[in-house]
Formats: sequence, structure tokens, C-alpha cells
Amino acid sequence: MPLDSRVLDYYRFHREEFLEGLKSLLRIPSVSALSEHKPDVLRAAGFIADDLTAMGFQAVRLVEGKGHPLVYGEWLQAPGKPTLLIYGHYDVQPPDPLDEWVSPPFEPTLRGDNLYARGAVDDKGQVWLVLKALEGHLKASGRLPINVKVLIEGEEEVDGGMIAAYVKERGRDIGADAVLICDTEMFAPGLPTLTTGLRGIIYAEIEVQGARTDLHSGMYGGVAPNPHQAIAEILTGLKDADGRILIPGVYDDVAEPSEAEKEAWATLPFDEAAFLANEVGSTSLTGEPGRSSLERMWSRPTFEVHGIRGGFVGEGAKTVIPAKAVAKVSLRLVPDMDPEKTAQALVDRVKALEPKGCRVQTRIMAASAASLAPTDHPFVVKAAEALHETFDRQTVYIRSGGSIPVVGLFQRYAGIPSVLMGFGLPDDNLHAPNEKFHVPNLYAGIEAVGRYLALLGE
Amino acid sequence: MPLDSRVLDYYRFHREEFLEGLKSLLRIPSVSALSEHKPDVLRAAGFIADDLTAMGFQAVRLVEGKGHPLVYGEWLQAPGKPTLLIYGHYDVQPPDPLDEWVSPPFEPTLRGDNLYARGAVDDKGQVWLVLKALEGHLKASGRLPINVKVLIEGEEEVDGGMIAAYVKERGRDIGADAVLICDTEMFAPGLPTLTTGLRGIIYAEIEVQGARTDLHSGMYGGVAPNPHQAIAEILTGLKDADGRILIPGVYDDVAEPSEAEKEAWATLPFDEAAFLANEVGSTSLTGEPGRSSLERMWSRPTFEVHGIRGGFVGEGAKTVIPAKAVAKVSLRLVPDMDPEKTAQALVDRVKALEPKGCRVQTRIMAASAASLAPTDHPFVVKAAEALHETFDRQTVYIRSGGSIPVVGLFQRYAGIPSVLMGFGLPDDNLHAPNEKFHVPNLYAGIEAVGRYLALLGE
Repeated sequence: MPLDSRVLDYYRFHREEFLEGLKSLLRIPSVSALSEHKPDVLRAAGFIADDLTAMGFQAVRLVEGKGHPLVYGEWLQAPGKPTLLIYGHYDVQPPDPLDEWVSPPFEPTLRGDNLYARGAVDDKGQVWLVLKALEGHLKASGRLPINVKVLIEGEEEVDGGMIAAYVKERGRDIGADAVLICDTEMFAPGLPTLTTGLRGIIYAEIEVQGARTDLHSGMYGGVAPNPHQAIAEILTGLKDADGRILIPGVYDDVAEPSEAEKEAWATLPFDEAAFLANEVGSTSLTGEPGRSSLERMWSRPTFEVHGIRGGFVGEGAKTVIPAKAVAKVSLRLVPDMDPEKTAQALVDRVKALEPKGCRVQTRIMAASAASLAPTDHPFVVKAAEALHETFDRQTVYIRSGGSIPVVGLFQRYAGIPSVLMGFGLPDDNLHAPNEKFHVPNLYAGIEAVGRYLALLGE
Repeated sequence: MPLDSRVLDYYRFHREEFLEGLKSLLRIPSVSALSEHKPDVLRAAGFIADDLTAMGFQAVRLVEGKGHPLVYGEWLQAPGKPTLLIYGHYDVQPPDPLDEWVSPPFEPTLRGDNLYARGAVDDKGQVWLVLKALEGHLKASGRLPINVKVLIEGEEEVDGGMIAAYVKERGRDIGADAVLICDTEMFAPGLPTLTTGLRGIIYAEIEVQGARTDLHSGMYGGVAPNPHQAIAEILTGLKDADGRILIPGVYDDVAEPSEAEKEAWATLPFDEAAFLANEVGSTSLTGEPGRSSLERMWSRPTFEVHGIRGGFVGEGAKTVIPAKAVAKVSLRLVPDMDPEKTAQALVDRVKALEPKGCRVQTRIMAASAASLAPTDHPFVVKAAEALHETFDRQTVYIRSGGSIPVVGLFQRYAGIPSVLMGFGLPDDNLHAPNEKFHVPNLYAGIEAVGRYLALLGE
């Protein structure tokens, strides 16, 4: 069934409005990690709720609780048709380092075909395209082809506490057949992509206390413990120079991808030299020997340090032995690693590495499992078809190295699969300065989701 | 010859004024490392110059140049008597971490017998006691027992460029027989101390560049180099867990202290358990096995990391692979290590440790040699006598793990020894929050320097 031409026309005639609406949403600095942005986070939630109400959704409300609110809305006037739950997030990553942005992170700026702003692709732009796809059906035909519930959270970039509580509390009463999530990327420009696997994540802070207070490195150098040196010893005790994680047992439960999956990955248009030059820009790629780059990113656990706090990092030459250092680190998990077991193994390993004279403490801030979706589920099959129709190319199935913890929660507590239909591009600078969204993908995404709704209504 | 009783009376009757004057000097945040404090640094220089003029010094002026000015003044009306050059510094270390100060760093505050402020002991308090010792002679007897030149710099906590240029340019024309420096500490409360050895220092920044820009640790974790992990590998490649420096050749030129010196150190009242508990406050001391704590601090080279810049260290959980990391590090040098040779060895070692996918660069910010003074020089002998008279205890000779690069410069270019007569205490929190000066040592220091001047005039 082709998409109703009135809906398609609506999509094509309202592009300018869609873009302006997205810019308004991007101007709200809804950084969930920073408490000073709490009012902005609330403002973004209200913006989404107002949009749902305006297009004709019902029971629109903010689900309040301990953290940032969820935005909920529903349209359930298609009896006998399936119910699709739409998930996304309106919160964004902190924008620092600010001085590396070409245009300010919260002043959305078009350069060529790209819209630059924090949250452009992750995930405001992709939430927006789903809302506009819904709007097109409702405005042009007065109805949706299926029942739809919308649930947009504001804590995806922090601990996702609110959505986790919501899904756990309601379980199967959430009342949907599947979840649509637009928060991933296309493998290459123009190549329609469904992401079937995601890594899980453990985020932690490792704190090392040495002396009681900062000490003069001349007076005490040679006898006082140095927490930054201690962090260095711990980090090299957690990962070797080849990228192998040195936490005992960490590889025990790692499931290898199937031979069929590995073969499919080998046929993807992945140009390692171009990837190195255009996306990473370092002197070489790194990581576990004997594994392809896609394997290392998609099906292998990894350990990363994000920053080390403490000591003197200012201008000039302060000669201090810092009293304390805190490293922010994370592990990415793959099927079938258990998050709790792995978090404990990290805690134990750090304790075992405790350097002389120091006290270490590991705080686990988040822990979620990897997920892997069945490619023969009818909601996945129709998603592939909708993408194929929109982009006129065969849809590919990939995994992502990133983590969307809610996918595991929907599977475990509501018993429903997630369809990860993403419209980001590999060079969109997620979580980095100069994040962007490729505007043609905004429009293609609207059409693809519009077609998907129609196909699900058949 | 006892000190003229009028001078001694002057010292004892003006204690309150001396303390208030020091407080005024301490209120000036003359942080030489931070460019925004340049006006304060100039203000502190002017404060010293005004004090010299007020007490009757001549040719008082600010020696201007590329960096912060030197304050110069002279009193040369004792023909036939020796000339003592007095050196000190009016600049201070940055005060961070600010939140660990009990009272604000630039609001000098008395608690018990201690005056708390940045620079209280290092070195404003000790510069002040020398000035007040001079003032006592001039005000009470109308003259000084010897000729005196005063040279106070404003870059001791950074690169000391101005004083180095001054000493190198003038060489022996500097026209003095010895230098008096009050910028060290007493080995124990009430124990008069001369410091005969100082360590040198190399200060450097190690910069590691990985990817072109910050990357998402989910998407790129497993293939992108992590500069913070790279810094950890470099740091553990520069120093092992026992505190041994791993730079090839670094121990080749290290001179062992004489047996006599080691024996004298063994008789010092050093209580390692108390030192650990009261000064360091960590779970244990660290450092090279097979060496005493005093040896490790005084006669062995050490390597320390002061802080690591880059990445995300804020609140919450940002999942970024930083593009760049910069470690601020230093090496302390002992006799007879060559600073240039050691700096090159550090640069070479870091280059050799360059982790895969990263580019490293080492910037040497400062390099100065260790120094060791002869204990039988008449200026040293009389200093020991002045201290003995003031404190009524035998003076001990120690070394310090810290660095006063100018000592080496005076020796090398002007051919004169430095007498390091210090009045700090081991728990004065140099370079750390809650720096203090023990007020009784301010008064004892004034008397001791007053007596020293008298003894030199005999």
C-alpha cells in the first residue's frame, strides 16, 4: 500500500515549517546532566507536549517523578489495528568543549545541507521527524493508520531513571506491540539501515585519595602517594595497550556474532581508510588484535576513560601532589554480559589494583545490558520495507556500539521488541562539538516513518 | 658580639606593627602564574619597594623587563664590611582548590599562633622578616652592620626568567659576598636549621592528541585512540609502582650523599609514623625501596604528575572519548644531574612511549639544577651561630626536596654561595590550601636575621 498522497504532499509542502519547528526545539539547552539546566529540560518537555496536543493527540501529559518528566500522549482510535509505542528523548549531552563549536551549540545554524546544534541528531531531530510523520497523517487524512502511544524521556543522557521506573512499573500493561526508536544512524549516506544490536553500558567514577591535602611536590615528592599516578596505574591495569580489558571474567559470557551476521558485516560498504581519515582523524585505529573494526565497535566489550578530575590543570607551573583524583570511566557491554556481574567485577578489579598509600572507591552510576533484536519480527520486516521504499535501496541490518538502555527494559519488562530506524550519519558528531543533522535525512525520515505507519495499518 | 639592645628592643616593641604589615602584603593576590593577577603582582612589588624606601634604603627601584619586575634596593654605607645580597620572592602559588581553604587565601586570618594565607610562609612572611630585621637596625641604630643589597623577585613560582637574566647579565658585578635566602623551613619546631642542599626541577607538559575531535565512546569505543588512556600508559612508563623513574640514564649521574651526611640525617628527630600521620595523612608512605624517607625526599630524583587536562570531568555521565589530554608533570633533580640532558631524556622517553594512534609532544617549561652548599663557608658558619643564639639550640644542616633555582644561578654566574636560613614549619601547607606561617617564627626569624647581620659586621 503506497502512502496516501495527501499525507505525502503534506510532508513535502511543510518542510520549511518542520525545519523552523526543529530549530525552536534545539534552542532549548535541555542538558539533563547539569542541574542548572533543569528549567530548560522542563521547557523542552513542554514543547513536545504542546506539539502532540496541537496535532490531535490525547491524554497528553508530563509524567512527573524523581527526575526529569516523561512526555506521554496517545492516539488510540484505530480499533483492531496494532499499537506502536514511540520512544525518544528530548534531553541532550553537555555542549563542552564550547570553544570547539563553529556556531554556538544552542543557536541552530544551517551550513550547506546540515543543521548544526547540540541535540540536532541525538535525539531532538529524530524525535521531531517522528512527530512530523504523525502530524502529516493526522492533518492530511484526519487519522493515523494504527494506534500510537508516544513516550519521550528527558534523562537518556544521564541515568534514565524515570523511564526505567515507568517501564518496570507498567510491564505488559504498557499496551503496545512494538517500540519505534529513531535515535541511531544510517550505515552510510543514502543506505537505509535498521540497527538490530546495541551495546550496554556501565558508567562509573573511580576515586583515589592519597594524602589528606595537596602537598608540595618538592618537599614530599618521593614519599607521598600521587593519586594521578595511581589512576594511571589503575587504568593500565584495566586495559592493556592493545585494548584488551584486564578485568577477570569480563570475556566469559561474551556471545560471538553468528557467522551469517559476520558475513553480512563484511559486505557493508565500510572503507577503513576513509573511516580513519574522515571520522576518527587519528594516526591509526586501535583495539583488540584479530578482530575487524566493526566487530570491535559492535560485538566486543570496551573500556574507556572520559576524563580525570583533580590536581592542577591551569596556566603555568604549579608543583602540587594532588590529594585526590577522580576518573570517569565506562565499559560497553555486548550480549550476553550481565551488567551487575560486570559492574562488581570492575569494582573488585579496581580494589585489587589499589596502589600503595592510596584508598580507592568505585561508584557505579549506571549499568545496562546489551540488546539484540530478531530480524524476522513483522514490525522489523515492515520497517525494512518502509525504508526500502523511501530510499529506493535494500535496507541493511547493522549493530551499533552505542547504548540505548531502554531497549533492554522494553524487552525484559513489557515483552516487546524495539525497531531502531535511524537517520543520523556517521559524521554527525554525536556527543561532540559541532553535532549536526543532515537536513535531507530529516525529510526522508518523516516520509519513511509515515510509510511505516501506513504499512503497519495494512 | 650580642645584638645591640636598642635593635632587639625595636624588634620586641614592634611585633604588632610587623604582623599588620605582613597581613597587608598577604592581602595582595600576587599569583604570578595567572595573567589576570598581573596588576596584583605589580602591586606587591610596589609594596616591597615602598617598605625599603621608608626604612632608608637607597637606589630603590623596580627592575623591569619581559616578566614581572624585580625589586632592588641597597644600603652600602659600611665601608670595609662585607656585602650581603638578600633574595626572596613576592609572588605566590595559585590558591586553588579554593573550597578547601578554611579562611579565604587572600584574607590573612589568625587562628591560634598561626597566620593563614597564600604566601604566608612561601615567601612573603619570610621576605617580611628579613625586611623587618633590616628596619630594626636602621631605625634603632641608624645604620646596618654590613652592606646590604636586596633583590626580591616576582616569578619564583613560575619560570624565574627575570632574576635568571639579571644574574646571568651581571655575573660577578652583582657585587656581593653571599646571598641570604629565607624561603625554606626548620626541620622541627624550635630546631634551628640551615638547608645546604636543594633539588633542581624540570617542569613539563605532555600533550597527547588522539582523534581529531571528541568522539562518542559507544560509537567509536574499540577503534579510536583514547588520549587519557594513552597518558596513563605514558605515566606508568615514566615511573613504576615503587617510585623508580623509568627514563633511561636518569640515575647515571646521581651523586650519593656522603656517609657523614647520611649519618647526620639519621640523628635528626624524624618520626616517620608522626610524619605520615600529621603531614601526609595517607595510608602509607611510598617511594623507592631500600632508601630512607629523608633520602627519597632529599637526595633522590623523583617524578610527579600534577594534573591531567581534557575530557569530561563535570557532574553526571558524559560518554566521550576525548580528542586530547595534557599532563602537567615534573622531575626533581639531585646533584650531579644535568637539567638539559635530563629534559632531553624525558622528551625522548615520552616519544618512545607514544601509544598507537596518538601523537605526543613534550613541552619543557623550566629546567634547573640541584645545589649543594659548603658547610664550612664563614657566611654559613655565622648563620648557624645566629640561629643557635636565637633558638638556644645547636643548628642542624639538612637538605630540602624543593627547588630554588636561583641558588644555582648565584653560584654559577656570580660565584657566591647562598645561605638558606628558613623559618617555615613542616606542616605549613606550602603550595596547598590553608598555607600558614607560625607567628612566633616570624618574630624569632627577625631576631635571628638581626643577629646574623651583627655577626657578619664583626
